[in-house]
Amino acid sequence: MLLPMSPTSSMFLLGESREHPMHVGGLQLFVPPEGATAIDVRTMFDDAMLDSEVAPLFQKRARRSITSLGQWGWEIDQQFDIEHHVRRNALPQPARVLELLALCSRLHSSLLDRHRPLWEMHLIEGLNDGRFAVYFKSHHALVDGVSALRMLSRMLTDDPDDRDVPPFWAPRERKPKAPVERDGSMGTHALKEALNIAGDVAGLVPAFARTVRRGINDEGGAMNFSAPRTMFNVPITGARRFAAQSWSMERIRLVGKACDATLNDVVLAMCSGALRTYLQEMDALPAEPLIAMVPVSLHGAEDSGDGGGNAIGLVMCNLGTHLDDPAERLEAVHTSMLNGKQAMKGMTPLQIMSMSALGASPVLLYPLLGLNSVARPPFNLVIANVPGPRSPMYWNGARLDGLYPLSIPLDGQALNITVTSYSNEIAFGLTGCRRTVPHLQRLLIHLGDELDALEQAVGA
Amino acid sequence: MLLPMSPTSSMFLLGESREHPMHVGGLQLFVPPEGATAIDVRTMFDDAMLDSEVAPLFQKRARRSITSLGQWGWEIDQQFDIEHHVRRNALPQPARVLELLALCSRLHSSLLDRHRPLWEMHLIEGLNDGRFAVYFKSHHALVDGVSALRMLSRMLTDDPDDRDVPPFWAPRERKPKAPVERDGSMGTHALKEALNIAGDVAGLVPAFARTVRRGINDEGGAMNFSAPRTMFNVPITGARRFAAQSWSMERIRLVGKACDATLNDVVLAMCSGALRTYLQEMDALPAEPLIAMVPVSLHGAEDSGDGGGNAIGLVMCNLGTHLDDPAERLEAVHTSMLNGKQAMKGMTPLQIMSMSALGASPVLLYPLLGLNSVARPPFNLVIANVPGPRSPMYWNGARLDGLYPLSIPLDGQALNITVTSYSNEIAFGLTGCRRTVPHLQRLLIHLGDELDALEQAVGA
Repeated sequence: MLLPMSPTSSMFLLGESREHPMHVGGLQLFVPPEGATAIDVRTMFDDAMLDSEVAPLFQKRARRSITSLGQWGWEIDQQFDIEHHVRRNALPQPARVLELLALCSRLHSSLLDRHRPLWEMHLIEGLNDGRFAVYFKSHHALVDGVSALRMLSRMLTDDPDDRDVPPFWAPRERKPKAPVERDGSMGTHALKEALNIAGDVAGLVPAFARTVRRGINDEGGAMNFSAPRTMFNVPITGARRFAAQSWSMERIRLVGKACDATLNDVVLAMCSGALRTYLQEMDALPAEPLIAMVPVSLHGAEDSGDGGGNAIGLVMCNLGTHLDDPAERLEAVHTSMLNGKQAMKGMTPLQIMSMSALGASPVLLYPLLGLNSVARPPFNLVIANVPGPRSPMYWNGARLDGLYPLSIPLDGQALNITVTSYSNEIAFGLTGCRRTVPHLQRLLIHLGDELDALEQAVGA
Repeated sequence: MLLPMSPTSSMFLLGESREHPMHVGGLQLFVPPEGATAIDVRTMFDDAMLDSEVAPLFQKRARRSITSLGQWGWEIDQQFDIEHHVRRNALPQPARVLELLALCSRLHSSLLDRHRPLWEMHLIEGLNDGRFAVYFKSHHALVDGVSALRMLSRMLTDDPDDRDVPPFWAPRERKPKAPVERDGSMGTHALKEALNIAGDVAGLVPAFARTVRRGINDEGGAMNFSAPRTMFNVPITGARRFAAQSWSMERIRLVGKACDATLNDVVLAMCSGALRTYLQEMDALPAEPLIAMVPVSLHGAEDSGDGGGNAIGLVMCNLGTHLDDPAERLEAVHTSMLNGKQAMKGMTPLQIMSMSALGASPVLLYPLLGLNSVARPPFNLVIANVPGPRSPMYWNGARLDGLYPLSIPLDGQALNITVTSYSNEIAFGLTGCRRTVPHLQRLLIHLGDELDALEQAVGA
């Protein structure tokens, strides 16, 4: 029996091509428990895998047929084969984080098999520091990026002595939990909604297309796009490069404190400085500042959790990449974020959501309208900040040592930065097209340098 | 500048989809030289890679555009990036041949990046017996399976003391060499021609379609199809399973000698018995015998090498899978091959080639005509025998210990068996759709059992 699929989910199947795999991912690093090795952790995963039931969500596959009039729907895969979905990998010598990121880049480049449930989990052994890694990927039609990270966390507990924890795909009861909110960042449900809205709006192509075009052509209207053309706003290829690194949350927080900016402002300023240096090295820094699309939660801690009705906004943030001074860039980001959020204050949640969706939808509309090569980009990249677990987490005694998000580059959006928090660190996950964003890993060095520069500039 | 692409090559790009990656592959196993490890071999590859030039063949990528009127052509990739093409892998513990085949199955399942030259080479370390593996894949538009195996062999020499051998993609001078012929098997150039012919004929769809249909519907005509429907003749999915194993050429030769059959007859009889047992276990053995399409060289050792004009034929071989006795199956195969070859004897090379092409073309025509679900299959599977090097070969002192071909399953042809010879062994490479051909590795056990049974039956 074919169960209905939401238009948003269908869109991620329809919009997919060799050049645009539509899956999101997550990378987890584990430290084996006292006295155990990475292979022991792998064995625990293997055992948990064999024992476990699989929840319907992870057994359903996408299908369309003549009888469904070509519409996509879901059905349970009667030949479900867990070994197709949970795979074992190892790293070549010397197995450093560099080799791990290279493997994740490749795993994130290949398309999921559409004849099967749209997810894969990769157990990765062999890191020479004794850690163990898990890479997870899921089609956006099945779960979005935020849900994917949350899903991975489902098998974690904050109790290091907890054992016999089932894998994330096992069916289970779970109390709904209010999303964790942090200054300037947004709740998990909120971002999920944001993405859904962007999707639903994209379904209304004919109605919105003229408005979008007016905005693009600076003819006035609901939107005003002023993002410069950059090397990130070009058609992309199918191969990906992934880079990731964490920095101390305390350091970032102190920089913010010193100049009355939020933690998210500092994260954005780090991105700004890193992008500026990267583009300068490529001799490709535009004279005008880069614009980032930043999803923000407007209600902050008042959020009502999973109950729906979240008011979220998408702020077009001026990154101030034309400015030479790190403190001035932070100031520009801070002002831009403040203005963006204040502009939404007098509006109803519905107005805000419509506005925001309109701001985001061009990313998905552009390929449909064939505007990629002619129009100015609506913004230069997405920088999303998704909160993760606040305290140290464990899987059967193995301590989660790092958690990094992998996202979806698109035509015209060759680079995505998704930031997440875990325990006392902030992790940056950079996903780019391998061809159009060369030397992606340099951005990590620049991010670190920028944090140093900001500390020096504000005296933190 | 866009250089023209042959219609055959274009067809392999046009016919490709998520379900039908159109690349062939090869797996090589190396024993490190005395006193060296697998990592040393990997390091040699790395060094050779850095030093080497890249021949134009390996730098060209496929492209089509509005200016080429949508036709595919070739152009040199100006941003050629060797690290995208040559990749390093490792095997999870316990790293046996089983884990190696699982990795090759996955590597053979993913699509090549069409924005780049259509090949990848994977260096695979970590086998617990100390060996080192290389998996190579190439799009059929770039090189066919036979050429792929030959290409891999370009970097091999029969001198264990030879050093500083460049990788296969380096430009070099090479004397044309007459293809090695063996009883019943075929020359490399011959099979290449066969595939090209099948392709060129498929381009003449309207002219041939009626003839093919007549044959399919048993209305008489140039062809007479009598292959039963089997589980191998169904639509397929994109994931692959690869299994491979070698047997002593001497054992196979002795069986043939004992009953006046060729080495290739015994190879086919092994496949017959193995397929019979496999289908019986699946409760899916048809009452009628399976038909294999077997490419054969008609001129044998007289072949004129690379000069073209090879007369080759495609014999539809009755595998006798309905027979209970191994010796009777071998007899059936032998008779069928003899009849097939004799039927071609009175024909001109052109007639033979037209006939053969007509026999093979339905594999490619079926999807175009939408006949997969209604018609009986023209044959049940392809079993190709491609000769490899006769003497032990070396790469910079590392001894080639095994050489296995990976081929392309198609809709309606879910299993492919390609056999190759190397030194004193015959290697079977089985490539199947992961979903429609479950437990593919069982066929290896059955192949071994069948060789035992044949030895007993003929007293070899």
